[in-house]
Amino acid sequence: MTTVAVLGAGIMASALTFPLAENGDDVRLVGTHLDRDLIDSLQRTGVHPGLGLAVNPAVRAYQLEDAPRAFEGADVAMSGVNSFGVHWAGRQFARLLRPGMRVLSITKGMEADDEGTLRILPDVMRSLVPADVADGVTWSAVVGPSIAGEVAVHRDTCVVFCGEDQVSLDGLADLFRTPYYHVWTSTDFVGHEVGAAVKNIYAFAAGFGQGLLDREGEAEARYRRFNYGAAVFAEGQKEIRQFVSMLGGRPETADGLGGVGDMFVTSMGGRNVRAGRYVGAGIPFSEVRGRLMKGVTLEGVHAISVIGAALERLTERGLVGASDFPLCRHLYRVVEQDAPIDMPFEEFFGGMR
Amino acid sequence: MTTVAVLGAGIMASALTFPLAENGDDVRLVGTHLDRDLIDSLQRTGVHPGLGLAVNPAVRAYQLEDAPRAFEGADVAMSGVNSFGVHWAGRQFARLLRPGMRVLSITKGMEADDEGTLRILPDVMRSLVPADVADGVTWSAVVGPSIAGEVAVHRDTCVVFCGEDQVSLDGLADLFRTPYYHVWTSTDFVGHEVGAAVKNIYAFAAGFGQGLLDREGEAEARYRRFNYGAAVFAEGQKEIRQFVSMLGGRPETADGLGGVGDMFVTSMGGRNVRAGRYVGAGIPFSEVRGRLMKGVTLEGVHAISVIGAALERLTERGLVGASDFPLCRHLYRVVEQDAPIDMPFEEFFGGMR
Repeated sequence: MTTVAVLGAGIMASALTFPLAENGDDVRLVGTHLDRDLIDSLQRTGVHPGLGLAVNPAVRAYQLEDAPRAFEGADVAMSGVNSFGVHWAGRQFARLLRPGMRVLSITKGMEADDEGTLRILPDVMRSLVPADVADGVTWSAVVGPSIAGEVAVHRDTCVVFCGEDQVSLDGLADLFRTPYYHVWTSTDFVGHEVGAAVKNIYAFAAGFGQGLLDREGEAEARYRRFNYGAAVFAEGQKEIRQFVSMLGGRPETADGLGGVGDMFVTSMGGRNVRAGRYVGAGIPFSEVRGRLMKGVTLEGVHAISVIGAALERLTERGLVGASDFPLCRHLYRVVEQDAPIDMPFEEFFGGMR
Repeated sequence: MTTVAVLGAGIMASALTFPLAENGDDVRLVGTHLDRDLIDSLQRTGVHPGLGLAVNPAVRAYQLEDAPRAFEGADVAMSGVNSFGVHWAGRQFARLLRPGMRVLSITKGMEADDEGTLRILPDVMRSLVPADVADGVTWSAVVGPSIAGEVAVHRDTCVVFCGEDQVSLDGLADLFRTPYYHVWTSTDFVGHEVGAAVKNIYAFAAGFGQGLLDREGEAEARYRRFNYGAAVFAEGQKEIRQFVSMLGGRPETADGLGGVGDMFVTSMGGRNVRAGRYVGAGIPFSEVRGRLMKGVTLEGVHAISVIGAALERLTERGLVGASDFPLCRHLYRVVEQDAPIDMPFEEFFGGMR
């Protein structure tokens, strides 16, 4: 039996306890300071309120103050927080990790410094952990098209475990594999993390087509805006591939589960798509953020802000061409400058010609 | 003013008359023997019954017997038939084409000989035209994510005109470009035609997820099967790329409008997706074809039959690996052998590892 301690009890972290517990692992789910009521519910009733489901009875839930006990003797340490919690999680890991553990992260996103240099989040987390511990554990992550609730109800899901150490990846994959949870492994850590981060950018734009129909009073019209959505999707694929290459990943990673597959599932719905639909309908993004979706976590929008700003720095430094990433740049103007949607189709695919 | 004669008055061919006519071209739309009532409607009322819209008043409609008059003096000859009509269209072109014309085809698909050697449809059409005429015209095609009705109502649409002759492509693109109809050009004729043909294969599988929910009584459940659909989509992308490479196209063509973009829009709905949904719900395909969707044109299913059979030949000949194209092969078994859906996830992405 393998002991897995999970930091963060959000829906994705909690969904991943299903395959683990079904495989007979000892699973310890630790809430953050934001998860207090959630852990309380799990401890009292076994029901995860976010998922709307009872978790496997073998899963044990811990409040944050009991984290040291939960991580005591763990073989695997999972980070289950979202991108906004990565610094917090890194600081927690600084006290909770022990050499020999295998770290598995589900946190997706990137950070940039003032020069626009982008960094994947596992690297950010690692930088917050003392060097001897950071070097004494292995770092891996879960990416790929994975709506949490679908995993929890045993719907087929295909993901990639990516990391630097193939032996760790093989072992981690074996812990999770079930007849419905299909795991590939890859040592293209950077490529997969970049894909997972930037695909969220394009999911925001996936809501625009329906929003434009809303604005035109054509929300129920016979003819939709699927052609629009498909062009945006194809340009998104191209830009993901370029981001992956630029940051040192393997370009083909953008084609697979961690690139186009994840962009597909993210484009099918969710909070970022909903925010994009409002903007499509003509509402300035500041109003969406400040009023219509106030307090809602929008990881895609956050990725646009971080990566869009970094692109400006990288362009000034001559490291990125001014005509590269036209879709990401347009989304940045929409999000940061309240620009109306004016899709720069002519600049897509390297420019019309 | 350029004169464009279009053979076939289906919805896609007719939709493309909108940008042409708006640009002031002389557009002559010729019905096939199957379009008689449709042309009659166009001549009497200007309304295209399939589109449910009035065409531009400048478009002139002709019955098939008037085709020679419509093609007289035409600069551009379009083939607007679907893949089932390609031989018929080739024979018509044999009498209607004149040296100097630019041929533009919207027919998508491939044919295979008994050895499994695959051929794109423009080549099939060309082979049916006398050599001196075939060599005296230029051959090009329209590909990319394009729902016909959306073009007709002026929704933004991004497509690729592909062909062998860049000068022709530039001229043709100029004829069609409008503020909503965005045209790129490419001389990767083979790659784009292959992408356009094989993307239809995967659209059939895009219906499976919803069908499986139907079968499970979960059609309205909170948790869907988007993870399933995303994995199928990503594997579809990989297989499109491999088909494009194998048949001599540029691999990157699979990433763009003619590959992943077109697969995206085709996966959003339509007849092939509907057929796939029935199969997902547990209905043998023979019953879908023979009863539930009797008489409905299913280009995706046709592509599966043709290309799936060709793959068997090519594998026997040692030209394709037995573990390549697992999704296409599974769909072939579903369509040709009434196999139940049993998605071979473990074989996806080069095999699980």
